[in-house]
Amino acid sequence: MTDDLANGSISPDFRLDIPEGDDRTRRICNNCNFIDYVNPRIVAGSVVTRDDKILLCRRAIEPRKGFWTLPAGFMEENETVEDAARREAQEEACADIRISQLLAVYSVPRISQVQVMFRASLASDIAAGPESLEVGLFAWKDIPWSELAFPTVIWALTHYSGTRHLRGFPPFTNPPGTESLTR
Amino acid sequence: MTDDLANGSISPDFRLDIPEGDDRTRRICNNCNFIDYVNPRIVAGSVVTRDDKILLCRRAIEPRKGFWTLPAGFMEENETVEDAARREAQEEACADIRISQLLAVYSVPRISQVQVMFRASLASDIAAGPESLEVGLFAWKDIPWSELAFPTVIWALTHYSGTRHLRGFPPFTNPPGTESLTR
Repeated sequence: MTDDLANGSISPDFRLDIPEGDDRTRRICNNCNFIDYVNPRIVAGSVVTRDDKILLCRRAIEPRKGFWTLPAGFMEENETVEDAARREAQEEACADIRISQLLAVYSVPRISQVQVMFRASLASDIAAGPESLEVGLFAWKDIPWSELAFPTVIWALTHYSGTRHLRGFPPFTNPPGTESLTR
Repeated sequence: MTDDLANGSISPDFRLDIPEGDDRTRRICNNCNFIDYVNPRIVAGSVVTRDDKILLCRRAIEPRKGFWTLPAGFMEENETVEDAARREAQEEACADIRISQLLAVYSVPRISQVQVMFRASLASDIAAGPESLEVGLFAWKDIPWSELAFPTVIWALTHYSGTRHLRGFPPFTNPPGTESLTR
């Protein structure tokens, strides 16, 4: 290894190949033979409410910058799913939340994501974090449906709405007939 | 890039650093500056039953080779969680299964895993796949409790048992008081 290498004069250069003992094609770096095992990633998030109003965040980052979303994001190492959902609410809306139950487990195989969504209550004030342009609490009738960032946000809001007065319900998965959005 | 490089004469050589625009330390290769983003991985599996007997597989691979487990394994790209659970039952026990409902979502932050476990019924014969030494259908009283591979296998069997006659129950998470096993 030289300083030139450490300074970034070369970049990863991946070929597709099946590693020994494996049965799937993986990306292998031609420079250093690193095998880039990729597994689906978990997005953890919440439908957070106070007084029947729902917390939404307007995205300050791509994809879907400027559109509204639920506080949610990629799990980091050494977290529980619940830890990750609480951290994302804190990061995106400076919100302390209290998770009450699992709302849904959605799969988006096209982009290899699993989204684990909870129901939670708001236990603090809110303010836009660095990844949000603004945050707000919306009554159901005021939700900006045409400006929501992702189909799973619509699903989670809808599934929340149908079970808002229930405790201990089985969680939802992808709605039937939505394969064209996820496959 | 030379043939020597492609033939594996150098290996990945990672430093720990915070990439620009990030707020966490990541592994970055000194050879090619590849950033190895790591996120928790999802294990998808099932408690599969026929006539009140439960499908178990004796592991042919490490970790916990020789111990009994539920059919479960790492999700691959472009699957749903349910796809992955079905594939693992097929790979480990040559079993076609019919998933009925979500049983549990366990987090094991120490090893950055989230385990999504379903309840399913067996719809085929079974046989040991390449990762299993043997497979079997066990009545509750015959389960080899002292030879189970992982705590989450015990949890899933216990949670299954408590809800075997229920439909539409809320899924379980880690049992209380088990943090020393997962943190």
